[in-house]
Amino acid sequence: MGADHAERVAHRVSGARLVAVSDADAARAGDLAARFPGVRAVTDPLALVADDDVDAVVVASPGAAHEEQVLACLEAGKHVLCEKPLTMDGESSLRVVRAERAAGRPLVQLGFMRRFDPEYARLKAVLDSGRLGRMLLLHNTHRNKSVPDTFRSEMIVRDSLVHEVDVARFLFGEEITEVTVYSPAPTSAAAEGVVDPQVSVFRMQGGAVVTNEVFVTNQVGYEVRCEAVCERGSAMAGRPWADLYTTVAADDGEGLWGGGVPADFLGRFARAYDLELQAWADASRRGEVVGPTTWDGYAATVVCEAGMRSLTTGEPASVTLVDPGPAS
Amino acid sequence: MGADHAERVAHRVSGARLVAVSDADAARAGDLAARFPGVRAVTDPLALVADDDVDAVVVASPGAAHEEQVLACLEAGKHVLCEKPLTMDGESSLRVVRAERAAGRPLVQLGFMRRFDPEYARLKAVLDSGRLGRMLLLHNTHRNKSVPDTFRSEMIVRDSLVHEVDVARFLFGEEITEVTVYSPAPTSAAAEGVVDPQVSVFRMQGGAVVTNEVFVTNQVGYEVRCEAVCERGSAMAGRPWADLYTTVAADDGEGLWGGGVPADFLGRFARAYDLELQAWADASRRGEVVGPTTWDGYAATVVCEAGMRSLTTGEPASVTLVDPGPAS
Amino acid sequence: MGADHAERVAHRVSGARLVAVSDADAARAGDLAARFPGVRAVTDPLALVADDDVDAVVVASPGAAHEEQVLACLEAGKHVLCEKPLTMDGESSLRVVRAERAAGRPLVQLGFMRRFDPEYARLKAVLDSGRLGRMLLLHNTHRNKSVPDTFRSEMIVRDSLVHEVDVARFLFGEEITEVTVYSPAPTSAAAEGVVDPQVSVFRMQGGAVVTNEVFVTNQVGYEVRCEAVCERGSAMAGRPWADLYTTVAADDGEGLWGGGVPADFLGRFARAYDLELQAWADASRRGEVVGPTTWDGYAATVVCEAGMRSLTTGEPASVTLVDPGPAS
Amino acid sequence: MGADHAERVAHRVSGARLVAVSDADAARAGDLAARFPGVRAVTDPLALVADDDVDAVVVASPGAAHEEQVLACLEAGKHVLCEKPLTMDGESSLRVVRAERAAGRPLVQLGFMRRFDPEYARLKAVLDSGRLGRMLLLHNTHRNKSVPDTFRSEMIVRDSLVHEVDVARFLFGEEITEVTVYSPAPTSAAAEGVVDPQVSVFRMQGGAVVTNEVFVTNQVGYEVRCEAVCERGSAMAGRPWADLYTTVAADDGEGLWGGGVPADFLGRFARAYDLELQAWADASRRGEVVGPTTWDGYAATVVCEAGMRSLTTGEPASVTLVDPGPAS
Repeated sequence: MGADHAERVAHRVSGARLVAVSDADAARAGDLAARFPGVRAVTDPLALVADDDVDAVVVASPGAAHEEQVLACLEAGKHVLCEKPLTMDGESSLRVVRAERAAGRPLVQLGFMRRFDPEYARLKAVLDSGRLGRMLLLHNTHRNKSVPDTFRSEMIVRDSLVHEVDVARFLFGEEITEVTVYSPAPTSAAAEGVVDPQVSVFRMQGGAVVTNEVFVTNQVGYEVRCEAVCERGSAMAGRPWADLYTTVAADDGEGLWGGGVPADFLGRFARAYDLELQAWADASRRGEVVGPTTWDGYAATVVCEAGMRSLTTGEPASVTLVDPGPAS
Repeated sequence: MGADHAERVAHRVSGARLVAVSDADAARAGDLAARFPGVRAVTDPLALVADDDVDAVVVASPGAAHEEQVLACLEAGKHVLCEKPLTMDGESSLRVVRAERAAGRPLVQLGFMRRFDPEYARLKAVLDSGRLGRMLLLHNTHRNKSVPDTFRSEMIVRDSLVHEVDVARFLFGEEITEVTVYSPAPTSAAAEGVVDPQVSVFRMQGGAVVTNEVFVTNQVGYEVRCEAVCERGSAMAGRPWADLYTTVAADDGEGLWGGGVPADFLGRFARAYDLELQAWADASRRGEVVGPTTWDGYAATVVCEAGMRSLTTGEPASVTLVDPGPAS
Repeated sequence: MGADHAERVAHRVSGARLVAVSDADAARAGDLAARFPGVRAVTDPLALVADDDVDAVVVASPGAAHEEQVLACLEAGKHVLCEKPLTMDGESSLRVVRAERAAGRPLVQLGFMRRFDPEYARLKAVLDSGRLGRMLLLHNTHRNKSVPDTFRSEMIVRDSLVHEVDVARFLFGEEITEVTVYSPAPTSAAAEGVVDPQVSVFRMQGGAVVTNEVFVTNQVGYEVRCEAVCERGSAMAGRPWADLYTTVAADDGEGLWGGGVPADFLGRFARAYDLELQAWADASRRGEVVGPTTWDGYAATVVCEAGMRSLTTGEPASVTLVDPGPAS
Repeated sequence: MGADHAERVAHRVSGARLVAVSDADAARAGDLAARFPGVRAVTDPLALVADDDVDAVVVASPGAAHEEQVLACLEAGKHVLCEKPLTMDGESSLRVVRAERAAGRPLVQLGFMRRFDPEYARLKAVLDSGRLGRMLLLHNTHRNKSVPDTFRSEMIVRDSLVHEVDVARFLFGEEITEVTVYSPAPTSAAAEGVVDPQVSVFRMQGGAVVTNEVFVTNQVGYEVRCEAVCERGSAMAGRPWADLYTTVAADDGEGLWGGGVPADFLGRFARAYDLELQAWADASRRGEVVGPTTWDGYAATVVCEAGMRSLTTGEPASVTLVDPGPAS
């Protein structure tokens, strides 16, 4: 993911220049830097943050390193795009929120890239237009072809469901108050002991209900879709059949219509990442922050903590957010 | 619904002849009969059942009258197509199941017409083919434009959700063991005190999970859809966009693509009703029963009773089916 | 096709009874009749027409036999559903038109079943509603998986394009005045010397233009589609993707979305045939004729003759229809 | 269009810097430049070309000015992205082709942006993969909501059909040899004397046939679509229904499914323009040219000249391309 972001900054973002890349593994850092003439490789991320040539930082390290790195950026007064999750638990996320508030001006954009996907953005605009009336329900579908063997049940909540958490909060513009995670009989393609797929239900502050399907070993491909159900209509983003359409004679003589499912999120959300990075670069140069904030990162982390509790107990888990609340 | 069935038997079913129609309201019975030359009107449904010219009976009376009428048919040894629900509660439904078993041969087809819809039937065939692997999840969507003011929250379970109950049992080929009904903040179009839309979750015997959205005042039209999620793929029936497609210049100058949503289930399931009645007439002449049975009617009633309990308590409600079990 | 119609009359048409079937091959006639208890087999079609038990006749013999058989029906005053083509050339078709006029009352329905397809019928209704303004263009697509080796270039005009001829005349409600047939480099799946696919252009009486693709060895399946382009919008019938939708993991590990293309027209137009036969039976019992007429059959034959001339010369060929003009 | 390109170069292209803008109207040039800090405004385009700070030039002036400006760029050895048409007639286009050849290295990219649209590019890749077999037919659809009153029949060929000319040449990888333009009875929304819509047919060098619909006052919106028909399948790009999907209760109480048709090409091809400019900037910095060439511009101009002849005569017009042929 870090290499992908480096590529974007170097070659696809207008008004940005890649200065340095950091990886604890010096060889990997060097290999990556070598792809971009004049770019430095460092092994100490804090040295990169401190570098006077660096105006803004993309944090794409493992989640456990985020708190220290983001705090360093805040200290240095540098803009930062932090990949989700903000940190690994609510308490540390809250510390980051408070540190940013204390610093006196917003500097952090959270990497919930779907908000920049044109179709999700159009969906948000349609909902906000009021044309369909108040949103009553939201149905999210999130499927991956496969995951590494190390992917455990709770990571399906923390690393996958977290995107649906942000989508629900983004589209409703309000907080999630309760999460229930159901554990269906798993697919035979899931690793031993892993609950996959998972179905979960959110209750929103205003009383709306959200259903989520997360299925990370569907063997087919990456499918992300949502349907918002409103008082006078519904809207759907991410239909997989909205792509190059073919008919073809299959090898067994049958005729098929349809197309290919993207293998992963990089294909599906390539445009969203482009727009996310460009918006971040543009805003950073203006000294502003756009898109999701540390508060969004904190809230998502707390909701996922509730989700992991519910996964264990099978019972609904309530979500409690501590002040200071979203930035005005 | 009765008039609609009479019309079908008279004009669209091969090998069937409409002999008599019954309505407690003599004028209504007479008006209906008058549309079909030579057809008798009666006010006593049991007289109709007893009529020697009558070989088979369609029961489309209010649910409260079903038990007596179906039992009369069983007594008379006549084939019967009974509209859902079989009866108003599990206990009386069980009596009908047992009466039919006692009679020694099956005579009753339940009116779950969706099983005869070509697309649902194709979906069932795809699932049974094993091509997609085992079914893990099912997502049902059931929307109506509007309902009479007398439609209460529990009728959304008993009269609408009941179709999803049958779809789940039909597609999985197993029983539902638990129902949870969520009560989202209702649409402003719902009558005072009515919980609409409703989201519910079923647990299946084999561990699969089913989500259901039922929304009876969506103001748009009739939309019935389901998506089956399997180990190696998914399948969707009832996509509303699978119909005559138009682009059109709207009055406000905007250009639109799309089509019309059917106003009600008669339009959506016209073909399913045709096929259901034809299959019933054909089977009855062969002395057989096809399609859903009294056991399916009983099981659906018991699941809906659990759903109504969950609607009241907000808690999961378990489903307990009493022997004798489905007919072999 | 004849066996298929017999099956429909026997088992799926309300108010009709199959009395006799005819085939010059006595064994084939006998085998077919044996499938229907009490149905007679005859080898002389004119004996069948003359049979007092026969009220109405379906003519599904080879086109060369149509004139004699339809004229016999007219003579006998019996209703007839004649499969397309009406006859093999314009002159003989005109004789049939005139014979029916002379007989004083319409008795013949032509077998252009697409007019009974619900989607084509809805398209016609949308066009007639005026909502989209005047129709300016029509684009027809007609693809078959394969054809017998005996199928020649001119049969693509006479047996396949003829359906598009009727669709154009039906939807516009006016005559075709000129036909140009283009001969693209053929597919390697076409038999030696056969021009397939073919593209053709019609000019309509009112100045509109129609494009047609006919491709009878597409190796994929049966696809029939049309798009009407109007002053304020467009409408499309027959989109192949409007069917059961699946995603599936293909054997090579790729993920696919889509569905199956029907193998032939019997699958695609099963419902149209049902409705056609039912409408014909109903109208015949009322002593009426509905749907396409002998005039439609005659006009289609003359247009196809022009098409076959154009196929040979590569030049536009004009269409000249002779009185008596359409029946009032 | 020029302003749009300036905006892209300034804000969305990585590795490019906007230096100067040119417009014969000094006020307009100044207003545009004022939107970009540090950008100069000039009224003499040749001065801009000669400017030492300028490495590469986007020519988006009226077509009549292209020849002089592109030749100046060639003289100055500067890379140029030239909007279509290359020039106003075949002869002058050929002069530009020859001048570029004479200069010894390619410098010109033609502005046929559709080649950069992801869906057209995917279509090209599918065709080139051979999976569908040889392409036999291509059907192009090109609709605009409206055009200025000054838009004449021949401009529909030169400014609209020209895109389909390039698509056909691009997808087939071969030349067009004959064009026939049909003149249907025009829409009532067309200006007096303007033939709109137009249907045209291309013959390709290898014998394939292409149908085109161009309709510039469809009152609905921008719809660009094509379907490639191959030996073992077909592929379609640009389906308008492949976008955010909604259902909605219309004001008259009807329920609709569908979405909005983009109002113009800027919306539809925004991504294609982004990718085109980025590819051009990247290639220019490497001293290379990617995408369509002056030969493509010349060939398209000659095909459109044939189209304009056919529009006048109603007869097929053949296309004669003069050496030197496409660059190797």
